[in-house]
Amino acid sequence: MTHPTLGRAASTPGVPVPGRPAEPVAVRIAVDLLGGDGAPAVVVDGALRALAADPDLRLLLVGPGEVADEVIRALPRADRDRASVRPLRGAVSMADPPYRGVRSDTTVRGAALAVAEGAADALVSAGATGAIVTAAVLSLSRWPGIRRPALLATIPAIAGPVALLDVGGSVEARPITLAGHALLGAAYASIVHAVPRPRVGLLSIGHEPGKGDRARRTTDPMLADLKLGGDAHYVGLVEGYDVSSGERADVVVTDGFTGNILLKGIEGAYAMAGGPPPGRAAPRAAALLGVHGTVVICHGGATPDDLASGLALAANLHRNHTIPRIATALADLIEVTT
Amino acid sequence: MTHPTLGRAASTPGVPVPGRPAEPVAVRIAVDLLGGDGAPAVVVDGALRALAADPDLRLLLVGPGEVADEVIRALPRADRDRASVRPLRGAVSMADPPYRGVRSDTTVRGAALAVAEGAADALVSAGATGAIVTAAVLSLSRWPGIRRPALLATIPAIAGPVALLDVGGSVEARPITLAGHALLGAAYASIVHAVPRPRVGLLSIGHEPGKGDRARRTTDPMLADLKLGGDAHYVGLVEGYDVSSGERADVVVTDGFTGNILLKGIEGAYAMAGGPPPGRAAPRAAALLGVHGTVVICHGGATPDDLASGLALAANLHRNHTIPRIATALADLIEVTT
Repeated sequence: MTHPTLGRAASTPGVPVPGRPAEPVAVRIAVDLLGGDGAPAVVVDGALRALAADPDLRLLLVGPGEVADEVIRALPRADRDRASVRPLRGAVSMADPPYRGVRSDTTVRGAALAVAEGAADALVSAGATGAIVTAAVLSLSRWPGIRRPALLATIPAIAGPVALLDVGGSVEARPITLAGHALLGAAYASIVHAVPRPRVGLLSIGHEPGKGDRARRTTDPMLADLKLGGDAHYVGLVEGYDVSSGERADVVVTDGFTGNILLKGIEGAYAMAGGPPPGRAAPRAAALLGVHGTVVICHGGATPDDLASGLALAANLHRNHTIPRIATALADLIEVTT
Repeated sequence: MTHPTLGRAASTPGVPVPGRPAEPVAVRIAVDLLGGDGAPAVVVDGALRALAADPDLRLLLVGPGEVADEVIRALPRADRDRASVRPLRGAVSMADPPYRGVRSDTTVRGAALAVAEGAADALVSAGATGAIVTAAVLSLSRWPGIRRPALLATIPAIAGPVALLDVGGSVEARPITLAGHALLGAAYASIVHAVPRPRVGLLSIGHEPGKGDRARRTTDPMLADLKLGGDAHYVGLVEGYDVSSGERADVVVTDGFTGNILLKGIEGAYAMAGGPPPGRAAPRAAALLGVHGTVVICHGGATPDDLASGLALAANLHRNHTIPRIATALADLIEVTT
């Protein structure tokens, strides 16, 4: 498993995105100024850090004009044309229902619409996941055959990066949804993590066939029969430990409820133990897969560095043409999940 | 949160069991010689370590006579009467279905029956969880009103120990089952972890009411209305991170599918990061709550130290009269879950 050197954006701390070296071409990212527990201050700081780290990054600041002005005023004069503004005041709080992401006066929907209109190449938000997914699905539309977009986080493991999905795109544990996640994860591991023969596992509570709840017992033989694309192959049931170690699988498929809890538990354990092993970044942003556009979601409790890390991930995904490449890879497989 | 000094058994490495100082009285534990991936060699080593660490420990070795003889021959001559034998040859592998634990020719059922008959004070096994739970329920019977016994693991956290349950006793996520887990966990935290006012949280994917799947959305208001006993109180939804940090809750309630995956993910992250913080032991054994008897389950992949740790946990639970005390604490609350 190799981790080729990335383009300039990789110097920003964050989720490593191995794969083809990114071209240092301009990328325009719509950033949700009102998303996240620390918004707007954390988003302002994160945006400034990302702009400083990546000279070819441009931001579309979606939020109140005075907050956007704060970003622009803090930039060196020569850089001020790298940030533009889409003024909007509607916020979605963590306590709001996901359907609030429908409203076009919200910053998250405005940012998603900017991507749909071609005014931005990608969307980054630390807001409520449900609202971001709602806004993304409505604005960018789902890929054919994908019931539920999945949120994919890269877990640093001794044996290499592990793609864990879903980590909160939906809480649905239906076998057909889990099969969709397997296709998305296999393509991501191949394209983004540059794993030549991705091993795909289904998260459960034992390795032996038959372990787990009804959804897992139904999904396990389904995945064994599924053509995963390229040289990806199914390795059977895996456990929580395997997500941390990376020894059994490069892609771990689960529902968004379990995946979100596991991701946050692993993050918490690293924080307790003083951080992940040297050279391995803890996951700080996740990619949404299954819609026509690049969408990166940061934690609600993101720090400015986390935001900058999410912006760097979005820039890399765009520069590597990741989302269209995954869509293409799936196009001849996807009838399986319709 | 205090951690009073324990009796002699606490010098064995393992899960800390604070609470009343344990009396150094003799305790007899039935140990399943054929349970676990490394059985019988790992169990033999673990038994010897536990006997060396705790002079008041006696073991009933349940398994093939020649394996038991190996333990006894390795003991100093003066200690040989501390181990006795119940010869049985039936093994339950990790791939066997849980109902194999019904068969009285299996070591796990034989060990559970020894507890039921009063020939042992507690059962320790590193075998397949489903078979151990089956054997325990059949031999020892459930407490009234407890639908599903729960497996409770103690997670070391900066803010103190966190009782996580269920970690694999069943995979059922029904609200009534989760409510039972809340009662069991609150009593355990109060009695074993000596937490004066246990904070009980329900594991989900956000702190705000309404986050999570249908089972969590139904259970959240149910727990808010439930009398938890003593000074325990419900604090609402918690996340995976809170299980690692311990800042929001002393007891975290979830279904056995999610809990098992989270526990193993946290263990894996600690292993990756070089271990939990100094002075905090990683969870190495879990207590089964909801049956009339002391039952401790070690990982299938347990090491000899893990086995010794599980034996020390069982000895402490018995010496502190933990299981009858929890049963008593629940007796006037339990009609809520019937």
